[in-house]
Amino acid sequence: MPIKLYDLAGADPDARFSPNCWRTRMALAHKGLETETIAWRFTDKEMIAFSDQGKTPVIVDGDRTIVDSWSIAVYLDEAYPDKPKLFEGPQARAHALFIKNWVERAVNPGVVKQIILPLFDQLAEKDKAYFRESREAMFKCTLEEFAAGAEDALPGFRASLNPLRVTLSEQKFLGGETPSFADYIAFGAFQWARVSSAQDLLEPTDTLVRWRQTMLDLYDGLGGKTPARAA
Amino acid sequence: MPIKLYDLAGADPDARFSPNCWRTRMALAHKGLETETIAWRFTDKEMIAFSDQGKTPVIVDGDRTIVDSWSIAVYLDEAYPDKPKLFEGPQARAHALFIKNWVERAVNPGVVKQIILPLFDQLAEKDKAYFRESREAMFKCTLEEFAAGAEDALPGFRASLNPLRVTLSEQKFLGGETPSFADYIAFGAFQWARVSSAQDLLEPTDTLVRWRQTMLDLYDGLGGKTPARAA
Repeated sequence: MPIKLYDLAGADPDARFSPNCWRTRMALAHKGLETETIAWRFTDKEMIAFSDQGKTPVIVDGDRTIVDSWSIAVYLDEAYPDKPKLFEGPQARAHALFIKNWVERAVNPGVVKQIILPLFDQLAEKDKAYFRESREAMFKCTLEEFAAGAEDALPGFRASLNPLRVTLSEQKFLGGETPSFADYIAFGAFQWARVSSAQDLLEPTDTLVRWRQTMLDLYDGLGGKTPARAA
Repeated sequence: MPIKLYDLAGADPDARFSPNCWRTRMALAHKGLETETIAWRFTDKEMIAFSDQGKTPVIVDGDRTIVDSWSIAVYLDEAYPDKPKLFEGPQARAHALFIKNWVERAVNPGVVKQIILPLFDQLAEKDKAYFRESREAMFKCTLEEFAAGAEDALPGFRASLNPLRVTLSEQKFLGGETPSFADYIAFGAFQWARVSSAQDLLEPTDTLVRWRQTMLDLYDGLGGKTPARAA
């Protein structure tokens, strides 16, 4: 029986843009586990009420329900120890937690500033009021005010990627010779941008383009098969 | 025969302020290896000419000479596989390389802006012209111009530590339950500041203070025994 993944989608059910759901899709592919994804919208709270919370990713593996992309990764390594590991061991996992926090604190805020308006635009109609209200409360300004100055912020955003850029010029993946869950965390940020916005956050000459393409090509092109946002 | 470590010092030979040398001192203590440190100044190039380069840390282990704090850590795990590991395995090491690059790109530049003038002030007289000339070429301005605005930059510097702060509120060390070389890399930045400047870069209520103190207490208080810069 495949593992079910409730996966955030836009108006187009194939527009799977959530960075955290992408972490989980890549993790499931890494483990080689058969997966069935279910398109879910922000306002489909009743659809995942069984998980006792209201966000995705949520996975259902037989009679087990697990929420939160980090917890899901830890669960998958514990439940499927004979499949390729997402974390080599406790120290690799502990270090990956730093990379997670860096992506969430130093990268994702820069991404969302760049993509917020096209991301909003592609949401299911029923999600738009929810998204606007919840994000405007978070940002303490309108979506349009939040997006203002995105162009001026782009060079600083690109510079903020330097620790990633330097590392991926020294080794193939964050995980070294092979990808680890840390790669999927970082990839989630770029896939979020790719599916939501036609603007490329990276310059074509950026050395990160090579790693991003490698990530898109993994697992029979899982990431790359999801359409990029059309210009 | 103890391992010899050439260790950057100020005018006071006990003022061991180099962040990279601290990585190595902590790594040698982690491995439980007997160590003899040799005070070295920036201009003592002939003293380490045998290493075919001009920077510290340099270690001499019997007939082996190793330079660069990262290469030394990798060497120590290879040469002493039965001693406590600095890296649990290849993936933990690969993830630690990201943390190294984050410290060097996102933290150390913020530290040096805060401490550059007291750091300069405590250098050996023979080092001062060298340091001023090389750093002013790097910064493309005088040391005094570089330090201007440090107070205004302090809140931003503290905010830049958020990925570290959040991680160390979730687990005891970057390495998890026990310190890894990633902890020594991050600690090096704080010890550099502590030995060079009487100003505390952290607010007393910062949750990072607990981790920093734990690091100072490790290995019979190795880090803490080195005097902090007097006010």
